Parts: sequence; C-alpha cells; structure tokens
Amino acid sequence: MPQSMARQLIDCHPTGYHTLDRKKLEAAILALYESAQAATANADAILNANLIRDMTDCLRSCLDAADVAETAAKVLSRATGYDPSITGPVLAAAAATLERCGEECARHASMHMHCRLCAETCRAGAKAVREMLDVVKG
Amino acid sequence: MPQSMARQLIDCHPTGYHTLDRKKLEAAILALYESAQAATANADAILNANLIRDMTDCLRSCLDAADVAETAAKVLSRATGYDPSITGPVLAAAAATLERCGEECARHASMHMHCRLCAETCRAGAKAVREMLDVVKG
Amino acid sequence: MPQSMARQLIDCHPTGYHTLDRKKLEAAILALYESAQAATANADAILNANLIRDMTDCLRSCLDAADVAETAAKVLSRATGYDPSITGPVLAAAAATLERCGEECARHASMHMHCRLCAETCRAGAKAVREMLDVVKG
Amino acid sequence: MPQSMARQLIDCHPTGYHTLDRKKLEAAILALYESAQAATANADAILNANLIRDMTDCLRSCLDAADVAETAAKVLSRATGYDPSITGPVLAAAAATLERCGEECARHASMHMHCRLCAETCRAGAKAVREMLDVVKG
Repeated sequence: MPQSMARQLIDCHPTGYHTLDRKKLEAAILALYESAQAATANADAILNANLIRDMTDCLRSCLDAADVAETAAKVLSRATGYDPSITGPVLAAAAATLERCGEECARHASMHMHCRLCAETCRAGAKAVREMLDVVKG
Repeated sequence: MPQSMARQLIDCHPTGYHTLDRKKLEAAILALYESAQAATANADAILNANLIRDMTDCLRSCLDAADVAETAAKVLSRATGYDPSITGPVLAAAAATLERCGEECARHASMHMHCRLCAETCRAGAKAVREMLDVVKG
Repeated sequence: MPQSMARQLIDCHPTGYHTLDRKKLEAAILALYESAQAATANADAILNANLIRDMTDCLRSCLDAADVAETAAKVLSRATGYDPSITGPVLAAAAATLERCGEECARHASMHMHCRLCAETCRAGAKAVREMLDVVKG
Repeated sequence: MPQSMARQLIDCHPTGYHTLDRKKLEAAILALYESAQAATANADAILNANLIRDMTDCLRSCLDAADVAETAAKVLSRATGYDPSITGPVLAAAAATLERCGEECARHASMHMHCRLCAETCRAGAKAVREMLDVVKG
C-alpha cells in the first residue's frame, strides 16, 4: 500500500510532530477528512429523502460533523507550536460531534444506505480521534 | 443601534433557540466571526513582519483561532436538535483556542499594532464564548 | 461610528493592501462574513419549516453560500503576495453563489421572515463583492 | 481496490448526481480534500523553514489553496439543486488557486521536500478539477 500524502508530509516536517505516534496521527487526519466529506454528502442526500421531517436532527448533526471534523483535521495537520491544551479540547469536540452524528445516522441506517455509510464513517472517525486524544493527553 | 442580522435571524427562528439567553448568543456569534477575521488578517500581517522567526507560534495560533472560531460560530448559529453535549465541547475548544491566540498575540502587542488588535479581539471573543458556555452548561 | 476591527487591521498591515480601495475592501469582507452567518442560520431555520420539500434547493444554496462566502472573506483578508488572477475568480464564485442564494431565498420571502432576511443579506453581500471585483479587475 | 466512501455515497444518492461523470466527480472530490490537507501541512512546515522570508508568497498561496479546495470539495459533494452556473465558477476558482499554489511550491521543491509534495498534490488536484470543469461546462 502506498503511503498517504498526509503521512509523507508528516515524515518530512522540519521539526517533526513531536513525540506523537505518527501512525495514529495519520489515521486521525485521514479519518477526519473522510468523515467531513461523508457528512457533507449525507446532509445533501437527506434533503431528498421522503422522511425529511423526521431527519432534521440527523441533518443538523451532519452539518456540525462536517465543520468540526474539518477544523480538527487542520489543527492536527499543524506541528508548529504544538500545545496539547489546544489540540486536546479540539479533538474532544470532534469526537463528541462525530459520535453524535454516527448515532443519529445509525437510527436511519436500515432505511437509507447513505445514512448507514455516514454512520460507519463517523464512528470510525470518532474512534481514530479518541485514539489520538489518548496520545495527546499522554 | 440597529439590531444585527444575526439577532434578527435568532428572533425569527421557527422553533427558537431554546431557553438560551439571546443577547449572549448574539454576542458570542458576532465575536466569533470577528475573531476569525482578525486572526486571519493578523496571520497574514505577521508573514511580513521582520521578526517572523520569533513569531511562528503566534502565527500558528492565529490559524487555529480562525478555524476553530468559524466552526463554533456555525454550530452556535444552528438551533435544530440543540444538544449541549455537542455545543459545550465545541465552545470549550473555541474558548481555549482564542485565549491562547490572545496570549500569543499579546506578547507582540508593543511591537506590532496588528498583534495588539488581534489580541484584543480574541480575548473579547473568548470572554463572550465563556459567558455563552456558562449558559449552555446551565 | 467606530471603525470596524477589519478596517483597523487593513490600516496597520505592514505592506498595505496594495492600491485596493480600502473602504470597498472593508465593506466586502464584512458583508461576506454577515452573509455566511445569515446563510448558516437560514439553512437551519428552513429545516424546521413546513414546506421543507419545496425548499431543498433553497437550503442547498444556503449551504453553498455559507462555504463560499467564508472562503472569499479569508482570501480577501490576506494581502501578502496579492494576485488578482486568484482573487478575481474567488470573488466571481462568491458573487454568483450569493446571487443564487438571494434569488432562492427571495422566492420564500413572503412566507418565511428568515428567508427574507437571508435574501437581503446575500444580495447586499453580492453587491459588495461585485464592487470589489471591479476594483480587482482594474 | 476498494471503492472510496465518497464514491459509495455518490452511488446511493436518492436523486443521483445528474449526468455528471461519477468517476471524474469522485476523483475531483478526493483530490480536493488531499490538496487541502497537503496545503495546510505545507503552510505549517514552511513556518519552520530557514528561508521563511523568501517563502511568504508560497505560504499565503498554501492558505488560499486549503480554503478554496475545501469549499469546492463541499460544493461538489452536493447534488441537490445542481446548478452549473454555481459549480462552474467555484471549480474555476479552485483550479486557479491550486495551480498557483503548485507553481509557488514548485519553486522551492529542490530545497524543501514538503514543498515538492505539496506542489505535486496541488497540481494533480488542479488537473482533476479541470477535468470535472469540462464535464460541468458540458
């Protein structure tokens, strides 16, 4: 398997990403972008679903997930002036938001394939973020 | 003073923003966008400062502040399916990020007017967010 | 009227914002952030409207407007290495997106106050962006 | 090769992504997120490079690329109310921004591996976006 571009950029950073586990860092960054995309696409798909009135909470949680995941991915992609007292709360917010989105989408998973896919992606994203959070908290 | 557009939209939301204090909600949303803009502009100004090598941590904290503040502003602007267990951590991350940005910028305030202005804005933003966070935590 | 923080930061930028009209620059930046907020809040309000099935295009145009306006505001907030061949297309995309959002929201303005407010804001935003675009194109 | 989550979500969208070429759509979405991540990481890496004063234009072009690519990825991820008069200018802005970032980074490619990687990624991103733009323009 070829290395991801994210991992290659981690590996050639001038100062390095401190003592952070690079494999978990790479996994969290990629999972956050994948979750952001899935949540954006699912929010759009829900707009066209027949049960839109029952899915407003789900749609809102997708919009939050997309925004928070993208921001966490950018914060994690930076190594300069690393400060766990910033990275920690940002990852905690991302984990909570992705977990809620996963939960909301899972409620509609049997009816809508796009919700099932988004639930899977956000739950995997939350898991990768929680593992990274353990590293950050040391 | 005319009402802000943010406040007018809060006041005509179909379901309302729950029991949240609308004045503090408006203040937090506006302060978050103002902080995001100031941090974006200050990051750019720092690029041209003579002391760039001493200011890398400051620049990075501005980029984080812009991203996290914007995301928190969007989460706060949504009322559907309000969940304090999401809004809380998102606001906590924003407060921490803005406080650090304010602190980093304040270190250069006597030398660079743009850092002084950004420090003021981010500290006011953090204060508005902390007040909103007290409301959310109930 | 006190000067906006955006204008104060424009005025103390180390290299200046080139020969760009500062008043129009300030107006465009502030209008873009206001449009981004209004479109975010209106997308959420629409979720709760009774006519959601007729308003899916409107909701989607609000999400696009929020994303594109925010990005254009950030690009405009930077002066370093200014390049009209980048700023131009970014502003053109923002103007088109805000105009469409204004048009979609205006169709529901008589029924929903939040759509009326969003239509006004996005149209004013598009106007400020078009004026800035004339400056950029020289 | 397993299908990307982006492609799986395209394939199960309730209304479909119109007559757009799904393979090119998937390629453009993934390339835009990869470019956004690479540009974010490279901007951070540049902060630590010794030649920072010569690289301010490069750093600024990375920040623009990250913002514009992310926004274009979100607009492309939506199918509801598809309008080529919006998608077109958004993709045109993304292509121009990624091309400039690729060019700026390529100037430092022999000195900095992170710039070489970012140049490659942004150029591949621009190419995928141009191919999608041809489809959108029909």
